[in-house]
Amino acid sequence: MDRVINFNAGPSGIPLDVLKKAQEEFLSYHGLGYSIIEASHRTPIFENILFNARDKIKKLYGFSDDYDVLFLQGGASLQFVQIPMNLSTGKKAEYINTGVWTTKAIKEAQIQGINYEVIASSEDTNFDRIPTSYKTDDEADYLYICSNNTIYGTQYKEFPKTKAPLVVDSSSDLFSRKVSLDNIGIFYGGIQKNGGPAGVTMVVIRKDLAERVSDKVPNILRYKTQMKADSMSNTPNTFGIYMLDLMLDWIIEKGGLDKIASLNGEKAKLLYGCIDELDGFYKGHAQRNSRSIMNVSYNIVANKELEPKFVKEAMENGMIGLKGHRHLGGIRASIYNSVSYENVEVLVDFMREFARKNG
Amino acid sequence: MDRVINFNAGPSGIPLDVLKKAQEEFLSYHGLGYSIIEASHRTPIFENILFNARDKIKKLYGFSDDYDVLFLQGGASLQFVQIPMNLSTGKKAEYINTGVWTTKAIKEAQIQGINYEVIASSEDTNFDRIPTSYKTDDEADYLYICSNNTIYGTQYKEFPKTKAPLVVDSSSDLFSRKVSLDNIGIFYGGIQKNGGPAGVTMVVIRKDLAERVSDKVPNILRYKTQMKADSMSNTPNTFGIYMLDLMLDWIIEKGGLDKIASLNGEKAKLLYGCIDELDGFYKGHAQRNSRSIMNVSYNIVANKELEPKFVKEAMENGMIGLKGHRHLGGIRASIYNSVSYENVEVLVDFMREFARKNG
Repeated sequence: MDRVINFNAGPSGIPLDVLKKAQEEFLSYHGLGYSIIEASHRTPIFENILFNARDKIKKLYGFSDDYDVLFLQGGASLQFVQIPMNLSTGKKAEYINTGVWTTKAIKEAQIQGINYEVIASSEDTNFDRIPTSYKTDDEADYLYICSNNTIYGTQYKEFPKTKAPLVVDSSSDLFSRKVSLDNIGIFYGGIQKNGGPAGVTMVVIRKDLAERVSDKVPNILRYKTQMKADSMSNTPNTFGIYMLDLMLDWIIEKGGLDKIASLNGEKAKLLYGCIDELDGFYKGHAQRNSRSIMNVSYNIVANKELEPKFVKEAMENGMIGLKGHRHLGGIRASIYNSVSYENVEVLVDFMREFARKNG
Repeated sequence: MDRVINFNAGPSGIPLDVLKKAQEEFLSYHGLGYSIIEASHRTPIFENILFNARDKIKKLYGFSDDYDVLFLQGGASLQFVQIPMNLSTGKKAEYINTGVWTTKAIKEAQIQGINYEVIASSEDTNFDRIPTSYKTDDEADYLYICSNNTIYGTQYKEFPKTKAPLVVDSSSDLFSRKVSLDNIGIFYGGIQKNGGPAGVTMVVIRKDLAERVSDKVPNILRYKTQMKADSMSNTPNTFGIYMLDLMLDWIIEKGGLDKIASLNGEKAKLLYGCIDELDGFYKGHAQRNSRSIMNVSYNIVANKELEPKFVKEAMENGMIGLKGHRHLGGIRASIYNSVSYENVEVLVDFMREFARKNG
C-alpha cells in the first residue's frame, strides 16, 4: 500500500503503526466482541483508557498532583471562552498577540467584557516573530500566550517570566517537546496535530484555579464540573481519547518528549537549512530566532506564481498538505512528530530539484 | 469473530457493515494514501463528506431550505447552554421536564438568568410518563422538550402543539423515526446512539432563529458563526462526521426513517410483550402510553436482588449493556437501530428462561 507523506497542518498524519493497531482491533477491542467506538464511557474498559492517558500525559511533562488533566470538546476555540469565564476575577488578564489564534482568544475576552490588556504584539510585522520586549504584571489574573503559531510558523523558545498563572495554548506543538512548568496555570491544546484525531481538547489545569469560577458561569463550561466528573460530566469523544492513548504509547516508545524534541529539531534544521541555502529562491516567513520546529512557512520569492505549481508537483510526488494557510499564502510544511527525518529529506530533495528547474 | 449483542445506552452498537467499511479504508481513504482521520478539514475530500451528510439528514427528515444542519461538539450538555444563549430575547422560554436531561437543560437556563417557566413535569411520578396536560404560550421565545428519555424509557408519540419555535433534544431517538416538522425551531442530538461515535452534535436550526443572538454571546457559541462557516469555524470532529455519513448511508439502504421506525416498533412490541406477559416477575418503568421504542427500562419486581444476576448471566450469554442507569437501577435494554429483531429475540428468550429458573 502506497502511503503519502502528510504535511497537513491539522488534522495531520498519524504514525502507521498507530493506525494499524486501531484498525486491527476496530471490530473487537481486546477480543471483547465490540469496537471501542461502541463501548459505553461508563465501563472500566473505557475509563481505564482515559485514566491511563491522563497519567501518561502527567508523566511525560512532569506535572505534579497539583494539576488535573481534562479531555474536553470544542477545540481551542471553546477554550478562548472558558479561560476568561473561569479565571477572570476582575483583575487584569494579560495577552500576548502572536497571530490568528491569539487574536481570536483576545476577541472572546473582549466579548465577555473582562478587564484585559494586550501587553505585546507582533502584528506590525505580520506576526513573523515572538515579541521579546514587554512587562508582565505578577498580580494579573493570568498571562495568555500561544506557544506555537501554526499559520505564521513562529514558536516561543522559552515562555514569558511571570508570577501570574501562565495560560498556554500548545495546540500545534503539543507533545513535541518538554516545557518549563514554572507558574503554568493552564496548558492546553486541541490534540489533532501530535495527539491523534480532531475533536478532543487536552486541558491541564492547576487545580486551585478551577475554584475561581463564579456560579453565573454555565455549569458545563466550568472546569471544576469536569474535574469532579473525570471529564465525563457528559459523554466524551471516546474514540478520540482512545486514539490519543495509542499516540501517547507511541511517544513513550520513541523515548519520550526530550527524544521527540531532539528529532524534531533535526528535521527543522534540515528544512530551514535548505530554505537558507536557496535564499533568493525560497524565503522563510518567520524571523530566525522565532522559527517554529513544527510549522515551516515560506514563499518562493523568486516568483510567487510558482507556488501553486510547487504544491501540485509535490502532490504528484506523494507529498500532501503543503499549501500555505489562506491568511499567509505560499507554502507551509508542518513537520509534526509523525513526519520522519526521511520524509523531510524527500521534501528537501524535491525543493532543491524544483529550484534548479525553475530558478 | 464473535461479536456481542450491544444494548448500550450510548455510545452504542454500530452495524457491523459500517464498522467493516471504516476498517477497510482506515489506512487509505478511497485509495488516496492517507486515512480520513488524517485528512485536513479544509480539503474537498473532507468537505464533501460533511456536505453530503448534511444533505442526507435534510432529505431523510424532509427539512426545507429554511433549515441549516450543523455539526458541533460538546454534546447535548453544551446545547443546554447554547439554546437559551441564542434564542432567549427576554420573553418567556418554556420547558417540559421529563427527566435528568431536561432537568439539566432547565438548570442551565436558570444559571443564565433568562425568563423561563417549567410548564409541565412528570417528576412527581419519577418521570414514568410524558405529561399531557399543559398550556403552551404561542408568544414564548421557545418551547423546549426532550423527545425520548434514555434513562426512564419514555418517549413523545407526538410533539406538543405550539406556535412558538419548538426545540427538541432528540439525542436518544435520532434517526429512529420521522417526526412532525410543524414549528420546529431546533432539532438536535448527540449522535452517539443511532448516528455513530460520541463527539458530534447534530443541530438542525431554522435559519432565521440564529439572527436573534446578541453580540454579548461568545462568538464560537453563536449558531450563526458556525452557519457562516459550514460548521468549520474551528476544526470539527472529522472522523465522527465521516462515521455519521456512513451511518446515514446504512439508514438509507435500510429504506429510510419510516422503514426504520417500523422495524423499531416491532422490536419494542416484542420486548414489551415479554415484560407484560411475565408481569409480576418483570415490570416496565414507563407508563404504557409513554413507552419508548428505543430504551426499555424495567425491574425484576419478583426479587430486585436478582437484577445483578440477570445482567451477569446475560453478559455470559453474549449480551452487554443491560444494567440500568444509576438514577433508576434495574435493567435497561437500549434497542437502537443497530439492534436487530433477531437480537431482541435472543434477549426475550433469555428473559423467559431466566424467569422460569428464578421465578
